[in-house]
Amino acid sequence: MAIKLNVEGMTCNHCKMAVTKALTELEGVSNVEVHLQEGTVDVDYDETKVNVEKLKEAIEDQGYDVK
Amino acid sequence: MAIKLNVEGMTCNHCKMAVTKALTELEGVSNVEVHLQEGTVDVDYDETKVNVEKLKEAIEDQGYDVK
Repeated sequence: MAIKLNVEGMTCNHCKMAVTKALTELEGVSNVEVHLQEGTVDVDYDETKVNVEKLKEAIEDQGYDVK
Repeated sequence: MAIKLNVEGMTCNHCKMAVTKALTELEGVSNVEVHLQEGTVDVDYDETKVNVEKLKEAIEDQGYDVK
């Protein structure tokens, strides 16, 4: 499963790393790509192991808003 | 000794933490305050132990430009 999330507030490479790390640490997430300029995050995940709500929570826990 | 440095590119709290940490780790630096919105960093330091060039280097090593 692949999803593109719109994430507000990611401004620099530290943000990129924080979001990437938080998502890749989730069971079932196989790939993460943060696009700073677009304000988006592409996530590949196994929907039998994780869901969109969990992805959003992981991002929000880092201090960013998911739209 | 106290100095206010103008630093470009600090955008978020991760930046603030990175700059604060890099400076406070320097021998002779006693206090650091990063002002994200102003793009400034206030540093209190002992000029017998460290100099402005070293402060600038520490910030630049984190990927920011000191003006």
